[in-house]
Parts: sequence; structure tokens; C-alpha cells
Amino acid sequence: MKYDTFLTGDRPSGKLHLGHYAGSLKNRLRMQDECLKGYIMVADVQALSDNFASPEKVIKSVVEVTKDYIAVGINPFKITIFIQSLIPELAELTIYYMNMVSVSRLERNPTVKAEIKQKNYGESIPVGFLCYPISQVADITAFDANLVPVGDDQLPMIELTNEVVRRFNRLYDKEVLKEVTAVLSKTQRLIGIDGNAKASKSLGNAIFLADDASTIKDKVYSMFTDPDHIRVSDPGKVDGNVVFTYLDAFFENKEELEELKKHYKKGGLSDISLKSLLNKTLQDLISPIREKRESLKQDEMMDILITGSKIAREAAKQTLYNVKSAMGITYC
Amino acid sequence: MKYDTFLTGDRPSGKLHLGHYAGSLKNRLRMQDECLKGYIMVADVQALSDNFASPEKVIKSVVEVTKDYIAVGINPFKITIFIQSLIPELAELTIYYMNMVSVSRLERNPTVKAEIKQKNYGESIPVGFLCYPISQVADITAFDANLVPVGDDQLPMIELTNEVVRRFNRLYDKEVLKEVTAVLSKTQRLIGIDGNAKASKSLGNAIFLADDASTIKDKVYSMFTDPDHIRVSDPGKVDGNVVFTYLDAFFENKEELEELKKHYKKGGLSDISLKSLLNKTLQDLISPIREKRESLKQDEMMDILITGSKIAREAAKQTLYNVKSAMGITYC
Repeated sequence: MKYDTFLTGDRPSGKLHLGHYAGSLKNRLRMQDECLKGYIMVADVQALSDNFASPEKVIKSVVEVTKDYIAVGINPFKITIFIQSLIPELAELTIYYMNMVSVSRLERNPTVKAEIKQKNYGESIPVGFLCYPISQVADITAFDANLVPVGDDQLPMIELTNEVVRRFNRLYDKEVLKEVTAVLSKTQRLIGIDGNAKASKSLGNAIFLADDASTIKDKVYSMFTDPDHIRVSDPGKVDGNVVFTYLDAFFENKEELEELKKHYKKGGLSDISLKSLLNKTLQDLISPIREKRESLKQDEMMDILITGSKIAREAAKQTLYNVKSAMGITYC
Repeated sequence: MKYDTFLTGDRPSGKLHLGHYAGSLKNRLRMQDECLKGYIMVADVQALSDNFASPEKVIKSVVEVTKDYIAVGINPFKITIFIQSLIPELAELTIYYMNMVSVSRLERNPTVKAEIKQKNYGESIPVGFLCYPISQVADITAFDANLVPVGDDQLPMIELTNEVVRRFNRLYDKEVLKEVTAVLSKTQRLIGIDGNAKASKSLGNAIFLADDASTIKDKVYSMFTDPDHIRVSDPGKVDGNVVFTYLDAFFENKEELEELKKHYKKGGLSDISLKSLLNKTLQDLISPIREKRESLKQDEMMDILITGSKIAREAAKQTLYNVKSAMGITYC
């Protein structure tokens, strides 16, 4: 990975939580050490595509997620953190790529399909929402990245990216754009503290990196375990037990965890003692992040973002120039 | 109209012909005198949306249509002539407006529907093609124009523009964007020399402003008249007679034309004498345009376009700034 460049990012629509930590932030910290270069995009334009009626939430979150990045250990001197809307070249690339993708191709995208259903758009799907995968193709190709860390729900976007890359290069008979490789996160999507399939801010079932100690404790102690595990001596179920799922994701001593699972299945291990262990684990993980986070100032974050956006823009300008040159539409 | 600003333009996909002259260029010359300001956009990005596989045709036509503008009398010191792709702010505005229009709203657009059918896209409608009306909303709103000269097939675009304008202003509770008024061309669409409903380059049935004298003559003498008008003494039909349609559009002496129509209907007026009159009319109209056109140099045209694009860009920058400020997404 010594010569690799990765690109990743988040829609700023709230602070980041343990689901992000397990699913992407940890992975980014590893890639920060292993790759030559990396970009993290704060995707405000994309967040607006389903929050255009409440942009203030998006804007506020831009600084919040940046605090989360720095607090977990992303090094802005190594990784370029930037704001999508400050890179106008992404809009231009999107417009050109829109000619290379058919409407039915977008409508077939399983992730977009699922999201459209979930969002209850009915007959009024905003064009911006249907088209966000094309805007992602622009994001992915603009910075000459070759690796894109993703969850498996984002694989159709990588597939679309490589289709556009091949189509563009073939059409203009030049190797202008680079195909990319998806780096699948090793951790499965983290479930919510209520046992829901996904921890998310909107469902109110996530533990945030900015949560204080007592909030974390309350959330851990409210977690679902095994509803049939009534007396301590009863045998308990591990599968679908939220406390064990979180221990799997965050408790480092895997041998000890196996012992605990055996003990719980047999009976004789209380939910309270398990929750106490998870609480300690999460407090140890989150408290240094939260303390670092609290020391970070809004102005410093904006400095990081503005500097990062300048650097990112240079890369995007070069890509747009290459794209327009290949098409022959350079006039001056 | 003393305080009005108009915006109009053409897709550069070939030289302009008499259909453009009658339908829009004459109108622009009038507005050039009557309005405070005007913009003419050479819509290369839009032309690429159905010519992305042959961009060289588009690029070449950018200079050709500019020659046509100057040759007919557009004054670049009064009217800002610019190239769409040199105004990146249009791409950014398009991306933001895409959030305010639904996919089904676009699919209902009768002009787009008709064009999709005509182009035989089948199941592979390019996203860029379906979305070009949104890109037109960006074009129309970017330069603070209040008048948009259009043919009646473009009225749905104006309607969409005003919908987006109202929606944006209401959503962000500010009068950021201005509604526009369509200025309908007084001349109906010019039919082709073969009697086809539309004179167009692709149908090969148009007389170009750059055509030489003998080409014009050949085209006039090949025109459809009344197939039942066999002997000079036969009564002839005026309706659907291409020669009369062209005389209606270009022969200035309307009284004389009425006399000719009466005479033709009664019988005794030959097709040849009519064609000779039309030929003289068109030679008189086109020869000074062609001569002016031939004196124009590629470099001069590029100077006009680059200068115009700089002026247009300042206006578009201001609009984009206003749009982003209203949404609150200004960071620096």
C-alpha cells in the first residue's frame, strides 16, 4: 500500500458515532499509516441532496465531523481533509459524467433503490438524490485515488465509477481516468443499542464519540441482551445480544471474550457484569477521544478544512483539465 | 425594455441557417437595440449532452456560430457572447438546483419527452440529457436576466425555471433568484426547403448564412411548391407551398406579396418566376452576411468569446455567491 492514495468521506449530517468508528475511522487510521496519501471529503453538497431544506444542520456538522476526525487521530498533515462544496471542479466533472450514465442505470442501483424506499420519496425523488452516485464518481476520480474504503452497500458506486472510467477512456481513446479498488471494511455494520440493524443518529440508537461518561453508561445499561435470560443462572444467547456485538467490536482481548461467551451460554453470568465490562471498555475508548475533541477549536478546524480544500482543489483542477483536454474543450 | 437584460443562446452543433435567422437572430438584433444588456451563450456543455461521442463537432461549431452572430450584426461591445463551459459556476448552480426538481417533473417535460423519442434513446437516456432543463435553469438564473427569447417549444423550460426560482426563494426565505419572462418569437418555426416541418442541419434541408450564391440558388430552385400546379395557367396553392412560406418570412414588401399570392391562386404565375423572386430576396439578405462572415478571423472570434466569458463569469459568480449565502454554505 506504500504507493497508494485513498479517498473516503462522510456526509456531514451529525456527529460521528461508534458505528463510524468501527466501520470506517479505525480503517482510516490504519490506511493513514500504510498509504502514501489520503483524502477525506466532508461531503456537504451530497448531504444537501437530502437535507436541502435544512442546510444549517449540514453546515454545523462540517466542523463537528472534522473534530471527530482529529480527535480519533487523523493527522491533517498526512491526510487532506476538505469540504466538497469548496471544490467546484467536482460539479463540472459531475456534469460531464452525466452524459456517460443512463437514467435506467441509476435507477437499477440497489443502494439508491433501497434509500429511495427508506426515505419515502414516493413520486418526488429529487434529481439530486437519484444522481448522487454520479457525483460520487466525480469525487472518486478527481483526486487520482486508487483505493476507496467502503462498506458493502457502497460497492455499486465503485462499480459505476469503474464503468464511467472505462467508458470515458475508451470514448476519448486516452488513459485519462484511473480505475479504483474498493477496500471493504473488515467490521460489519454496527447494530444500534436497541438491536436495530443500524446504529444511526436519526434512529437515536447510537453512542457518539462526543458522548459524556454518564450518557455512555446510560446507553450501555439500556442495551438489549437476551430477553429469555431472566435469572443469572439461566443459559443466555450470544447471537443477537447487543452487548456481545459491541464487545466483539470493541473489546480487545478476544480470548477472554470467548470465555465470557461460553460462560454466558452455560448460565451464571449476569447481564449487569457484562454491561459493566462493556461500559469500562467504551469509557476507556471514548474518554481520550472526547477529551481531545473538547480541546479542539472551531477556528482550528476551519483552518484545517480551508487548507485541505486548497490542496484538494489543485488535484481536482488537474483532473478536470485532463478530462476537458481529452474531450478537446479547452479554449484558452 | 430599457432596463431589461436578456439571455439567449445556441447549442453549437453546426453553422446557423435561415431558420435561426428568422426564429431568433432577427429578434436578438431588435433586443440588442431595445434592452439595457444581453447575453448570448454558446452552449457547448449542453451540446455535448447529445454529442459527447463527437466533441470535435461541438468545438468547431463554437467559432462558426460566433461568426454567424457577428456577421448578422450582433455587437459584441453591447452583447456579452460567452462559452458555457468557461463558466464553472453554471455546473455548481445545476448541482444545487437538482435538489429542487423531481425526476418525474423532468420526465413530464413535453419538449424533453419529444426529443427523447426523436433521438431513439430507448432505455438508455443519458442522465445529462434528461437533466439539461435543470442546466438551463442555471443558465437562465445565473446572469440576472429577466427576459428569455424562446420558441414555443422552450416554454416548458421557462416554466421550470420559475418553479425553481420560487421554490428556492421560499425555501431559504430570501429573494435571491429572479423570475423570468419568456419573449416568444413572432416568427413561426421555419420549415425546411423540402417542406419538412423544421429546417435543420441534420435533415440537410436548410439554407445556411454561410452558403454561397450558387448553393442558395440551387436550394431555392429545388424547393417544393404545389405539386398540382403543373401548367403556369393552373391555379396554385399557397398554403404548404415552401416558396411562399420563405417569401412570408423574408420578403419585406407585404403588399406585393399579397398580390402575388392572389395571382398564384388564380393561375398564370409560374413557379420559376416566384423562385427567381425568392432567390433574389435571399441573395440580397445573405450576401452581405456571408461577405462579413468571410472577413472574420478565428482569433478575433476567440477574443470576443474569451472576453465575453470573463464578463459573464463575474455575473455568474455573484449569483452563485448569493445562492450559497442563502443556503448558508459559505465557509471562507
